[in-house]
Amino acid sequence: MHFELTQEFIDNLIEIIESQNVKKARRLLNELHAADIALIYDNLNIEQAKFLFLLIDDGEKAADVIAELDENDRIRFLKSLPSDVIAERFIDYMDSDDAADVIADLPEDRQEEVLKKIKDLEQAGDIVDLLAYDEDTAGGLMGKELIVVNINTDVESAIAEIRSQALEVDEIYYIYVVDDDKILRGALSLKKLIIAKPNIKIKDIYLKDIISVKADMPADEVANIADKYDLVALPVIDSIGRLLGRITIDDLVDVINEEARKDYQMISGISDDVEHSDSIWRITKSRIPWLLVGLVGEIIGSRVLGLYHGNLAEHAALAFFLPLIVAMGGNVGVQSSSIIVQGLANGTLGFGSTTKRILKEMSVASINGIITSGILLAYNIIFSDSLALTISVSTALFSVIIFASMFGTFVPLTLHKMDIDPAIATGPFITTSNDIFGMIIYMSISGIMFYYL
Amino acid sequence: MHFELTQEFIDNLIEIIESQNVKKARRLLNELHAADIALIYDNLNIEQAKFLFLLIDDGEKAADVIAELDENDRIRFLKSLPSDVIAERFIDYMDSDDAADVIADLPEDRQEEVLKKIKDLEQAGDIVDLLAYDEDTAGGLMGKELIVVNINTDVESAIAEIRSQALEVDEIYYIYVVDDDKILRGALSLKKLIIAKPNIKIKDIYLKDIISVKADMPADEVANIADKYDLVALPVIDSIGRLLGRITIDDLVDVINEEARKDYQMISGISDDVEHSDSIWRITKSRIPWLLVGLVGEIIGSRVLGLYHGNLAEHAALAFFLPLIVAMGGNVGVQSSSIIVQGLANGTLGFGSTTKRILKEMSVASINGIITSGILLAYNIIFSDSLALTISVSTALFSVIIFASMFGTFVPLTLHKMDIDPAIATGPFITTSNDIFGMIIYMSISGIMFYYL
Repeated sequence: MHFELTQEFIDNLIEIIESQNVKKARRLLNELHAADIALIYDNLNIEQAKFLFLLIDDGEKAADVIAELDENDRIRFLKSLPSDVIAERFIDYMDSDDAADVIADLPEDRQEEVLKKIKDLEQAGDIVDLLAYDEDTAGGLMGKELIVVNINTDVESAIAEIRSQALEVDEIYYIYVVDDDKILRGALSLKKLIIAKPNIKIKDIYLKDIISVKADMPADEVANIADKYDLVALPVIDSIGRLLGRITIDDLVDVINEEARKDYQMISGISDDVEHSDSIWRITKSRIPWLLVGLVGEIIGSRVLGLYHGNLAEHAALAFFLPLIVAMGGNVGVQSSSIIVQGLANGTLGFGSTTKRILKEMSVASINGIITSGILLAYNIIFSDSLALTISVSTALFSVIIFASMFGTFVPLTLHKMDIDPAIATGPFITTSNDIFGMIIYMSISGIMFYYL
Repeated sequence: MHFELTQEFIDNLIEIIESQNVKKARRLLNELHAADIALIYDNLNIEQAKFLFLLIDDGEKAADVIAELDENDRIRFLKSLPSDVIAERFIDYMDSDDAADVIADLPEDRQEEVLKKIKDLEQAGDIVDLLAYDEDTAGGLMGKELIVVNINTDVESAIAEIRSQALEVDEIYYIYVVDDDKILRGALSLKKLIIAKPNIKIKDIYLKDIISVKADMPADEVANIADKYDLVALPVIDSIGRLLGRITIDDLVDVINEEARKDYQMISGISDDVEHSDSIWRITKSRIPWLLVGLVGEIIGSRVLGLYHGNLAEHAALAFFLPLIVAMGGNVGVQSSSIIVQGLANGTLGFGSTTKRILKEMSVASINGIITSGILLAYNIIFSDSLALTISVSTALFSVIIFASMFGTFVPLTLHKMDIDPAIATGPFITTSNDIFGMIIYMSISGIMFYYL
């Protein structure tokens, strides 16, 4: 029931395409869901994809395939097509939000060309309206397809309205209720409409106090609201409350996935949205920036250690625990910063000032610091014959853990206050900074210990 | 329009509760959405929460509040309530899937007690059915509330069916179509039902080839399917295709969020689902396991370095670059493993054997290795007066990057094949292992270089 892409399937498909076997290709396309056809794209060249996609007879399905394509793939594919094909074979069949996304992907000069070729003028108008919104806001996510009824009409006219718009709107979750000024007043579920008598007034059965979002609300906040209140669709309003469009949950699920992926890649030290199946060049490009940040940071670290050259030369055993100290600092720093970054992203941080949060993290760090440096102390008492080393290493470990937890809490909170994405304070940035501070702390403490003990 | 919890609100609320001001508390509860009331819980003690939650007059809303509570909070809250209150005030009003989740949270002996107090016997039966499924499968996510029509009936009887079940089912997205053997044959959107004439047969308008899932499918796979095909609800079937229930998108969004959080916490070295607002003790407990893994790993690392004591004592400058080598290995390892872990989670890994994947990662690593070790070479040619050190450091960096990328690719793929969650191969595990291998590589190469140069 669920299609799984295999190498055999692709080999077979390419053979069908290369032999221009239209009949076989059509049969295959009919069996597949649009999302699955879109998945195939990665394994075809442009000419093969063009041959295949233009064979899809069902306009809705062809449009869905284009809408489901990965953004980079779509840009490449559309580049190879004339404007009238894009407009008539794809855009005309799309929901306005998907259509606006596709048009936005085109270079400026082609946007107008394609818009002019769209036959459905209402659709073209909707797209132009939607292009005005930033793509990472509620306005950028919404579609114009919605069923709207006036609060003063009755159930019968609402049903008539649905009939008249049925072809335009794919899925109906709610009917939105507006007043004479087009101000959103509430909503009505289809279920309620079906079980109500035809002459009942909308104002007697509609749901007040529904949740709506303003067009300029950031996409991730919209997704958080839909998640929190378990909504499948959200109406979008302008600053005076007029209904502009609606956002459907599938687009919000994409936002949720994208945000999660972004945070995960940030903490992994990857700077761009890449997958293992991307080209070697793209993957390399996404990784080298953070590696360079790490390299420069660690070169600075090597200079810091150079300052303690005498100590390291005299007591080589100090170097044995250097990786331990910096690694533990890095681990604690990432633990602390990631919980703050996640809390900021999903609004579960609770109340409290930066100072209060840092104090809390320090309490956690103190317990963990006592446990780990205690174990290390016991280890060195047994295995090391240098008292200075034994005390240095455990004291430094405890101090580094406390410091790293403070630093890992402070930095993302500060970035957030400065309106910078706090997620950059995870991964290589936080580990590299903590490495340097860890070396300074370790070398200073051991310098004192070896001097006095 | 969206409620934001503030310290002032909580202070005010606690004052209302402490003064037992029922009227004021009721007014406040009426204004709030169930999800917002649930959020308040964290800031109240059990007695305060009990006073407040039992004042909610609307049964549906009270049930929603309980359903929205964090699992740990819910367990604690329900423990303080008698079984008949749980059954009559909450369970009776819940959707069967939420009700089953709540019952499953109770200790075994109380489950039966509560089940016996449920007045709606159909609801009790549904819950018992649902309790049989593992909570991380489609069966564990599904609810029994659905509108089902026989394929041989007509539109009029479908509407009658909706009327008769309207009170049971909150939201209707689809009407499911079954045959006489209760085998799922397809679905019908409410929109289609509204615009169809009453005497039209269901079999002439229903949608065939709908996507369904088997009851034992893992929850994350179900979420991937809903995401891929943009579904708001998914029917669940048994092994011979009989319709068992339906899963709604809000539950799948929770699954998606939870999976993302789990992966993120794993890469951060946090072993449990915690938030910054949790207790210091809980946060500590979630962090210490990976810190101990790191500590033990790095103690092993210190013993490895001990083997090269002579070298380190003679050439103290070797230690300057020790953190650099291990840190870069750690960074590359995390980059490689995270892309594999994400690819395995969302099915974007593409084809290919483990060998092919490792070769690809090695190509990426070679480019990054050449760039970074080239820069380091240039740096040391300018700043270092030891040729052996200069060559050692850059050679070791290149080798460590290649090794870390192979290791970071191989380990998660192997864990996945062994049916172990590959996500454990991110974060502290991969960095610590790479640290140890990095030390061995660096010390071996430098040992040879200083011997021959």
